[in-house]
Amino acid sequence: MSFSPLVDELIESLRCLPGVGLKSAQRMALQLLERDRDSAERLAKALTDSVEGVGRCQKCQNLTEQDICRICSNVQRSNGQLCVVETPSDLMAIESSGTFRGRYFVLMGHLSPIDGIGPDEIGIDALLALVEDASIEELIMATNSTIEGDATALYIADLLENFGVMVTRIAHGIPVGGQLGYVDSGTLSHALAGRKPIEG
Amino acid sequence: MSFSPLVDELIESLRCLPGVGLKSAQRMALQLLERDRDSAERLAKALTDSVEGVGRCQKCQNLTEQDICRICSNVQRSNGQLCVVETPSDLMAIESSGTFRGRYFVLMGHLSPIDGIGPDEIGIDALLALVEDASIEELIMATNSTIEGDATALYIADLLENFGVMVTRIAHGIPVGGQLGYVDSGTLSHALAGRKPIEG
Repeated sequence: MSFSPLVDELIESLRCLPGVGLKSAQRMALQLLERDRDSAERLAKALTDSVEGVGRCQKCQNLTEQDICRICSNVQRSNGQLCVVETPSDLMAIESSGTFRGRYFVLMGHLSPIDGIGPDEIGIDALLALVEDASIEELIMATNSTIEGDATALYIADLLENFGVMVTRIAHGIPVGGQLGYVDSGTLSHALAGRKPIEG
Repeated sequence: MSFSPLVDELIESLRCLPGVGLKSAQRMALQLLERDRDSAERLAKALTDSVEGVGRCQKCQNLTEQDICRICSNVQRSNGQLCVVETPSDLMAIESSGTFRGRYFVLMGHLSPIDGIGPDEIGIDALLALVEDASIEELIMATNSTIEGDATALYIADLLENFGVMVTRIAHGIPVGGQLGYVDSGTLSHALAGRKPIEG
């Protein structure tokens, strides 16, 4: 049922958000218009500002409003380790674990020839330039543990074979707090293959 | 973990949407900035336009960008029946059933003394003025079947006792397609009490 052109357009626009269908969009639009117009204005401003202001970091391709992002311009971080991730949210997840103090490179995707995404689309040239320039000793491949993520990691490792840089892959195994009975067989075989001696 | 001020502000603003927590807001913000900036601009425009343009109908209190909404200004609809609902989305739901051809009044809430919502806040005066003015024969109370919705319906029915208007309440019972075994006891007792002879 059609409401009024402006409300209909608002509902339709809200459906561009991931995970938002018609019902949720209706609920969101009505909640904003009935009870929360200040938040609606704030959201509109935040959207406009960030679409205008946020671009890519010239070094690591992460989202930032400066030329060089906070992490790349932070002199306290180690230059020796470069962690390669697929998306800014992967970077966010690793950062929030608080254990990595090196730098990042954000591919903005993974190799996927079937979707027309090749080495140029994920910025492999920029990554190679970074590895040649900087004093990087180790490249940590933290792409997702999917077929495409694994393929991307292998492709980059192959490319860098003669660069004198150690290329590592993050460990696969049982999640901390995970119960063996609920873990899939692929993860279990990785966990077994990757076993380590217990240091007493 | 903090990203960049603009992205953080976008994530924070998205959390005003109902049902959107931190993780969903991060996902939405990154999806918009990485892949869908056109939609972000469209959404920002729709939000601004509707906050500026959408107000209340002067007759029925429904959301509209005109003084009098589409339904109130539609001469083909019957003036004899007035359906009282709590919110615009309830109105939308009844409209999409396609069986009601009268007019509406949107309370924009229900009586809830504990939250400070009394008769003035839900526009009882405007409803009474409408009933006095217009040639209304029947007032259909379609407030929700909750304690507050029932109380609101009873309160309005009491007020209108001497207005010469029939006040009815929508039926409560088993939903169409519902299975008895899964229906709660309150609904079942309503369904039994409201039984009707089968017309053969």
